[in-house]
Amino acid sequence: MEQSQIDKLINDISKLPGLGRRSAQRIALFLLKNKAKNLSPLIDSLKESYDKIIECSECGNIDMQNPCNICSNNLRDKFTICVLEDVSDLWTFEKIGFYRGLYHVLGGSLSAIQGIGTDELKIINLLNRIEKNKVKEVILALSTTMEGQTTSYVIIDKLEKFKDLKVTRLAQGIPMGGEVHYLDENTLNTAFQSRKKVT
Amino acid sequence: MEQSQIDKLINDISKLPGLGRRSAQRIALFLLKNKAKNLSPLIDSLKESYDKIIECSECGNIDMQNPCNICSNNLRDKFTICVLEDVSDLWTFEKIGFYRGLYHVLGGSLSAIQGIGTDELKIINLLNRIEKNKVKEVILALSTTMEGQTTSYVIIDKLEKFKDLKVTRLAQGIPMGGEVHYLDENTLNTAFQSRKKVT
Repeated sequence: MEQSQIDKLINDISKLPGLGRRSAQRIALFLLKNKAKNLSPLIDSLKESYDKIIECSECGNIDMQNPCNICSNNLRDKFTICVLEDVSDLWTFEKIGFYRGLYHVLGGSLSAIQGIGTDELKIINLLNRIEKNKVKEVILALSTTMEGQTTSYVIIDKLEKFKDLKVTRLAQGIPMGGEVHYLDENTLNTAFQSRKKVT
Repeated sequence: MEQSQIDKLINDISKLPGLGRRSAQRIALFLLKNKAKNLSPLIDSLKESYDKIIECSECGNIDMQNPCNICSNNLRDKFTICVLEDVSDLWTFEKIGFYRGLYHVLGGSLSAIQGIGTDELKIINLLNRIEKNKVKEVILALSTTMEGQTTSYVIIDKLEKFKDLKVTRLAQGIPMGGEVHYLDENTLNTAFQSRKKVT
């Protein structure tokens, strides 16, 4: 059989993250079974998203305005920047809601395998923001994966030139609710080395 | 925060079958992170699907032509109709490729819970096709769930008026590769009752 639009659609859907061919097929059938009720509203929503959602040129967040609602919120502490890999990390912070500073979304972490070098990440933007806005503290909140940690070190290195800047990173240790006998070696080792005095 | 287009998009994506909020969020970010490369081609593909993919008025298959390429294929046996619940079942048959007759896609199975009665399924179309095309055999290939079996019985009942029509249904028993000690009671019971003479 020739490559039909149905195959093409399934193929295009299966390119979305987390979806295999079977789930793409299921979604395609769902959409095609009732085009007016299922497919048409989805097309409208995607088109509207294409037109309205933009990246914040300051911090890399996505929003319907630029600068985004966080960068343009005068109640937020403009002298503290929390550095993140992705917008989803920013959403997690905002959902919990305790942080009142600004963010900087790098757009990933350094990865030789995925071909992501320092130029692919918004590191220069970060340096410019720190300089321009007289930032006092940069909080590194990257993943504790190999890639995330490498990225942290590269950024720490580049931040050394800002003499009065405080650079911190999230504490590493046992996650809340974590059971000691389930911990991996690295976590336990880090938690042990960073143990805190109680009394 | 107000309901933004980002929330709306995530919400719309999470309505797709098999997707929860987390996976919808991941897909939305993937699309928005690179709109030109990821979002734009998907919109085009969905629009093209909306315009081009249609339901076959004969058998309920979806295709870019009506009647579909199966119904309009002169090499297929027009006197045999295999009755299925969904287009995905038809794809499974076609992928294996041993069947050379036509299909009839009901569009689901009878379900009081989901409010699917006989009027929601293409049963009358099936009766009309059998009459019009002098069909010789109807093969029921519905699921062996409660709903599928109820649907089979309802159809068998309606087919009784065609005196010369042969009505068959898929054999029930142990699936290939099935281990006896893992079989559920119903399967084992059916397989036992339908046991076949070997010598």
